[in-house]
Amino acid sequence: MTTRKLRIAMIGYQFMGRTHSNAWRQVARFFDTPFEPVLQVVCGRNEAEVSAASRKLGFEAHATTWQEVVARDDIDVVDICTPGDSHLPIVLAAAAAGKSILCEKPLANELAEAEQMLGAAQSAGIVHMLCHNYRRAPAVQLAKRLIDEGRLGRIHHYRGTYLQDWIVDPEFPRVWRLEKARAGSGALGDIASHSLDLARFLVGEICEVSGLLETFVAERPLEDGSGRGPVDVDDAALALLRFENGAIGTVEGTRFAPGRKNHNRFEINGSKGSLVFDLERMNELELYEEDGSESGFRTILATDPSHPYVAAWWPPGHIIGYEHTFIHTVLDFMRGIEAGRSPEPNFEDGVKNQRLLDTIERSHTNRRWEQV
Amino acid sequence: MTTRKLRIAMIGYQFMGRTHSNAWRQVARFFDTPFEPVLQVVCGRNEAEVSAASRKLGFEAHATTWQEVVARDDIDVVDICTPGDSHLPIVLAAAAAGKSILCEKPLANELAEAEQMLGAAQSAGIVHMLCHNYRRAPAVQLAKRLIDEGRLGRIHHYRGTYLQDWIVDPEFPRVWRLEKARAGSGALGDIASHSLDLARFLVGEICEVSGLLETFVAERPLEDGSGRGPVDVDDAALALLRFENGAIGTVEGTRFAPGRKNHNRFEINGSKGSLVFDLERMNELELYEEDGSESGFRTILATDPSHPYVAAWWPPGHIIGYEHTFIHTVLDFMRGIEAGRSPEPNFEDGVKNQRLLDTIERSHTNRRWEQV
Amino acid sequence: MTTRKLRIAMIGYQFMGRTHSNAWRQVARFFDTPFEPVLQVVCGRNEAEVSAASRKLGFEAHATTWQEVVARDDIDVVDICTPGDSHLPIVLAAAAAGKSILCEKPLANELAEAEQMLGAAQSAGIVHMLCHNYRRAPAVQLAKRLIDEGRLGRIHHYRGTYLQDWIVDPEFPRVWRLEKARAGSGALGDIASHSLDLARFLVGEICEVSGLLETFVAERPLEDGSGRGPVDVDDAALALLRFENGAIGTVEGTRFAPGRKNHNRFEINGSKGSLVFDLERMNELELYEEDGSESGFRTILATDPSHPYVAAWWPPGHIIGYEHTFIHTVLDFMRGIEAGRSPEPNFEDGVKNQRLLDTIERSHTNRRWEQV
Amino acid sequence: MTTRKLRIAMIGYQFMGRTHSNAWRQVARFFDTPFEPVLQVVCGRNEAEVSAASRKLGFEAHATTWQEVVARDDIDVVDICTPGDSHLPIVLAAAAAGKSILCEKPLANELAEAEQMLGAAQSAGIVHMLCHNYRRAPAVQLAKRLIDEGRLGRIHHYRGTYLQDWIVDPEFPRVWRLEKARAGSGALGDIASHSLDLARFLVGEICEVSGLLETFVAERPLEDGSGRGPVDVDDAALALLRFENGAIGTVEGTRFAPGRKNHNRFEINGSKGSLVFDLERMNELELYEEDGSESGFRTILATDPSHPYVAAWWPPGHIIGYEHTFIHTVLDFMRGIEAGRSPEPNFEDGVKNQRLLDTIERSHTNRRWEQV
Repeated sequence: MTTRKLRIAMIGYQFMGRTHSNAWRQVARFFDTPFEPVLQVVCGRNEAEVSAASRKLGFEAHATTWQEVVARDDIDVVDICTPGDSHLPIVLAAAAAGKSILCEKPLANELAEAEQMLGAAQSAGIVHMLCHNYRRAPAVQLAKRLIDEGRLGRIHHYRGTYLQDWIVDPEFPRVWRLEKARAGSGALGDIASHSLDLARFLVGEICEVSGLLETFVAERPLEDGSGRGPVDVDDAALALLRFENGAIGTVEGTRFAPGRKNHNRFEINGSKGSLVFDLERMNELELYEEDGSESGFRTILATDPSHPYVAAWWPPGHIIGYEHTFIHTVLDFMRGIEAGRSPEPNFEDGVKNQRLLDTIERSHTNRRWEQV
Repeated sequence: MTTRKLRIAMIGYQFMGRTHSNAWRQVARFFDTPFEPVLQVVCGRNEAEVSAASRKLGFEAHATTWQEVVARDDIDVVDICTPGDSHLPIVLAAAAAGKSILCEKPLANELAEAEQMLGAAQSAGIVHMLCHNYRRAPAVQLAKRLIDEGRLGRIHHYRGTYLQDWIVDPEFPRVWRLEKARAGSGALGDIASHSLDLARFLVGEICEVSGLLETFVAERPLEDGSGRGPVDVDDAALALLRFENGAIGTVEGTRFAPGRKNHNRFEINGSKGSLVFDLERMNELELYEEDGSESGFRTILATDPSHPYVAAWWPPGHIIGYEHTFIHTVLDFMRGIEAGRSPEPNFEDGVKNQRLLDTIERSHTNRRWEQV
Repeated sequence: MTTRKLRIAMIGYQFMGRTHSNAWRQVARFFDTPFEPVLQVVCGRNEAEVSAASRKLGFEAHATTWQEVVARDDIDVVDICTPGDSHLPIVLAAAAAGKSILCEKPLANELAEAEQMLGAAQSAGIVHMLCHNYRRAPAVQLAKRLIDEGRLGRIHHYRGTYLQDWIVDPEFPRVWRLEKARAGSGALGDIASHSLDLARFLVGEICEVSGLLETFVAERPLEDGSGRGPVDVDDAALALLRFENGAIGTVEGTRFAPGRKNHNRFEINGSKGSLVFDLERMNELELYEEDGSESGFRTILATDPSHPYVAAWWPPGHIIGYEHTFIHTVLDFMRGIEAGRSPEPNFEDGVKNQRLLDTIERSHTNRRWEQV
Repeated sequence: MTTRKLRIAMIGYQFMGRTHSNAWRQVARFFDTPFEPVLQVVCGRNEAEVSAASRKLGFEAHATTWQEVVARDDIDVVDICTPGDSHLPIVLAAAAAGKSILCEKPLANELAEAEQMLGAAQSAGIVHMLCHNYRRAPAVQLAKRLIDEGRLGRIHHYRGTYLQDWIVDPEFPRVWRLEKARAGSGALGDIASHSLDLARFLVGEICEVSGLLETFVAERPLEDGSGRGPVDVDDAALALLRFENGAIGTVEGTRFAPGRKNHNRFEINGSKGSLVFDLERMNELELYEEDGSESGFRTILATDPSHPYVAAWWPPGHIIGYEHTFIHTVLDFMRGIEAGRSPEPNFEDGVKNQRLLDTIERSHTNRRWEQV
């Protein structure tokens, strides 16, 4: 076990703050890591809340100004867990200060911002990583391995759906995720973006899209009870896709699918086989390969020591959960820091993903196919 | 039990000839029908083959010229089981002769032909029906009933995929279904059309589409061994959909999905619930309704006497098969003849379906959304 | 196609009469059969009902006295579809008359009767068959083939459950199946017997059992409304099993499992693999074989032409139903008649099955393991 | 958040040491706990290994003699993670020292030992708990809640199977779990015991059993390569069950079920509904309730804040893993310490569970039903 410390400053302490801090706490308890992470400081604007979060999440200290935190000498990593509209200045400052940066997705709400952040990170020569955690579910990594080994042959189809149902009730309030100024977009950037990132990871770059955005409920109660306000983001986002390698696909994100809680599902069909994954059963991967009379989709329980990341966990059949994908992410981020290279997905992927989202929006507006 | 005869002339005796003749043989054995069908004559061009088919399928007689058959006085129904490019003249003659017509889908390969057939049928005042058999799986009828009762609320999403894998091997020969002159189109007209018909049946009329057609294997071995020939139909057909009632959707048909044999699946999300159907498990319907802590997708085994058509069959849990959907079709066709009205789907649906397929093709060509 | 007739006399016309007559009507329409079956006569005690059934099921004639029917010169086969307590005299007479006999399970309600029937059939040298139709689901035949090929290695475990729920309501009336005098036993003979027959078919002979019978509802409303009457058969039957080949197992039949309609499920574990079948999804077989990191239970859709009986039906993915298992049964029965041998399962299996049921009852009574 | 410390001494650091230490580390990060656990000391016989484990698992210190550890003044809890044959003296000493005790299952390998431990704990008046972690999967707790609310009505059936496959290869070595002197029994005590504990938890006390134990592979390679040694525990354990409340059941544990990795499944049928749980999909609970034409087994994703323990974790559809069941266990243990009562399951359950295992073994030996 290492004794080298890696001192973490985490900006933000809500949902993503909880998943990231857990990852930093847990990673060295299960994996051989190049560093022992230290939860040095957590930063948030509300003194009382960030103080409580600091104790709850196990940080050494807390702070209320990210500018001071990022500038401190006693931190190595800036881990950004705030919403996308706040990332730009933090990244610029952290890069300028030479810190390694882990940034929660989306990298930015605007393509120009994302490009600026990538440029800053590259100029500073820092290690950067974007947290698209689902890439690091063992079953997804297994899918990647099988595709890279050619087990599926040439890929023809990607079929991605990320379905949720939390705003199907028209009386659900207009939270920040339903405001364009804060969230950038709705289902498109929040969840369809995960499915698009997996498409890029598993199939390849997307070159053309035909998009469709829809807002089913145009007005919702304001959270402060002061009446109703407009929803200016999409409730659902759909797109047809063309990949550079000749594959075609569909992607869909919606928050209006009753019963689908976190249904991030993809099906990939190649010339030699097919794969299916569903995040609600994230320890499983379905594989079809032609095998004569005994062909059939098989359910691989991705809990075998031979599967990516699994050897560090439990015996076969003992499943892991959602938060483990973040542990695997910080593991690879630490390895990247050790090696001096930015692991994928990094800010380059952040730019490409944002460009893809922009193109889908443009296609929707222009009602035609658009090149990415 | 009735003693009134309904004398059937069936044109064509291949795959669809087998399913239709079985339906006519079986329907009165299980249901109370207004007529007792008589398999009067089967017609095909090859004397030896149609003669063998006649005996095998249980017909009284066979013939080799459809013109003669359609003109016979001793038939009441013309049941057309030939490919779509041959339907027009048969329908025109049968309508002129005042016969009731059951026509296998597609009504025609061209919209203009379909419209001509509808006009002829309406002018002649005959009873006509289009055989889109999947509408009459009990689970699909149950889905329709639940939607009509408002159990799903306002429909937001339709997600239809009809996936097969029979031509994924590039050495699979160029059969007639891969020739535009014969088949009209590929996956679009053959299978995506089923998913579109179900969309219209369950959700409502489609007003706008953005389509994508793709041919992955451009040339295939000719069946006669004389070399290779071009494939001029689509291997896969995808579309984004907008419905008149505000719902949106996707539809996809492909013959390049290894492991998917007859995967005609749809998912429908409404404001109050969701439904899922998969033809490979056609006796099941998945239903989600909000029910507090005990909410979840339930698998309804659509084999209860209270489910459509089921009381005529077996006890709960004793499933029925593919061909039963045709039995239900001819049952309703006979009831339509008795009542003097054309059951749905009929030639009007044939026209609408064909218009939809045409619009998807046009949208593909123009690379933009098109109005249906 | 053959022109040789095989003239069928069917005794009984209720549920099993419907499945058997359908099988006789359909078999030559789909398979190449050595004979063309003729539905010569159906027999039942109630003149009005059997007359209606005759017309509905497609028989040439009907009769009300089985003794006369069995003695007729113009019949070749006696197909017995009545309850088990009536089989003995019919079989004895039919055997004496030299008819081929297909007998619905159970062969008898008493072991001695079953032995007498086997003896009579053997003495008369007739072809006999017991209708345990589930053996002839394609997925079950595929399971048998895989086991016989050694794909599972040495069999260690059989786990059979046949679960239904139709009498869980205590106010469900005391129908004939709940009377020992008529039905012989309850869940034991009606449904656990199917699971035991599959155990013998797939794993081998059972040599020792420890049984448990239970009646949860001791009294039920009489059907004629005249009050309540005792239930003297088992509501549920469970047993531990030892097979001659060293395998062990469990079997359970119950009519008290809400939601299980026809859940005839087995799981078999061998040294090299496992198999799972569930009658409610009777077109599927689950297979597990060790395959390194890609191991997993695969769902084989048993609808491929390479699967037993399937080539006569529909293309892959187009499923068949419950009644098809009877069609396959009469097919093999006809082939047995042609070959002059009694196909399995036949009256020998009837005796073995009945001996097994008797031993389970004895074990229950004696509260200890008993040898079969 | 509390500032009261609860100082933990953990005896053993292997598999269960990893799960327990993780639970202690994590519990206060997610739940509001009455104490803040402190990983005070971990104890094992091998100095080098326990030292490494101490650092890896996050303990303050390590020790090599449990006697010294248990006697220390600066610990509040003794958490026993060693195999069952070593529990007795540790428990006696810890109880005598007035420590709260959490003991991994089985409480003991012998009934008399278990009774002695219960007596000592009761005499000392300490808080004691047995770690049967699967009781505290949210889906299992939800099952308990539904049963307690009467949603299933009167329980008729319990059907428990715990299937694994890790020793199906005859060349798998004779590890300690295959030695009676160390492990007490094989599949019976290791895994069938879990299924029996769940039966007692969910259905009630078991009064009679008929058991069957089987060892398929009698000799295996010794771990030190010195040849082969006998296997004197069961490879598989099966039993028929009678419950005090009139329910009946089956339970089975085996390590010879290829493809079943951690298949701890139960199905419970009551007069009003059914429940199904499978540990390999431990975030799901299947529920059936009669609901007319729309009845069906529903899959409840037990990730809703309204489900037991879930509010502390992630949003709906974001699943948790195996180790979380231990976190819930130590949470309730801490609450028990705070309240001065021993939470269930505790040493009383340990005694009852051991008595049940003993009775199954005796039934197997005597080849008859035995009273518990």
